[in-house]
Amino acid sequence: MTTETTATNPRELAHPTRDEIRLEGVLHALADPMRLRIVRELAAVREELSCSHFALPVTKSTTTHHFRVLRESGVIEQVYRGTAKMNGLRRADLDALYPGLLDSLLAAARSEAERLGAV
Amino acid sequence: MTTETTATNPRELAHPTRDEIRLEGVLHALADPMRLRIVRELAAVREELSCSHFALPVTKSTTTHHFRVLRESGVIEQVYRGTAKMNGLRRADLDALYPGLLDSLLAAARSEAERLGAV
Repeated sequence: MTTETTATNPRELAHPTRDEIRLEGVLHALADPMRLRIVRELAAVREELSCSHFALPVTKSTTTHHFRVLRESGVIEQVYRGTAKMNGLRRADLDALYPGLLDSLLAAARSEAERLGAV
Repeated sequence: MTTETTATNPRELAHPTRDEIRLEGVLHALADPMRLRIVRELAAVREELSCSHFALPVTKSTTTHHFRVLRESGVIEQVYRGTAKMNGLRRADLDALYPGLLDSLLAAARSEAERLGAV
């Protein structure tokens, strides 16, 4: 059985495979304070979070845009569960492609937030 | 003597101080293949290189733009030496602000280049 049962599901969101992920795209995705904040939170909780969990100081459409950039760059995985769109960090893929990068980025973001008094 | 002898030099290029460097700006600067290539080369040679050293497949004005983005984000230092504009990686500043980040970024860029057969 190799049938992709989800292939025709209109709620299936497009993701790059691990091989399709590019460093350029990952860095672009993380070069934004809102998106970095989302990633830091996903890394901290180590579980899926719904989009509505994040109370970002931007409009809903901007929030949707940020999640799409993160998904299309391969940083997060988005799946529908019932009526909620759930988000998870693609840590295994990122760690396999770029060992140590995600952790050093998260550490850099944390120390910068502390330095600027915006923890 | 606290006189800044270079303050009135029109060839003095503006740089952020270490404290003014922001992760967002560094990641944006590195989220471009040409700029990442410049940084990889500067990291490899561990010395200053002139702009003209880099034979990038883009116009001269685009090259100048890329160097400016790298300088203004705090990734490189640019100084005039005679008629040449020399470029050096601000490794000490980046390592102090974001320990391990530059090395993991360089390793990620190297492994991606190998993976894509574009070493």
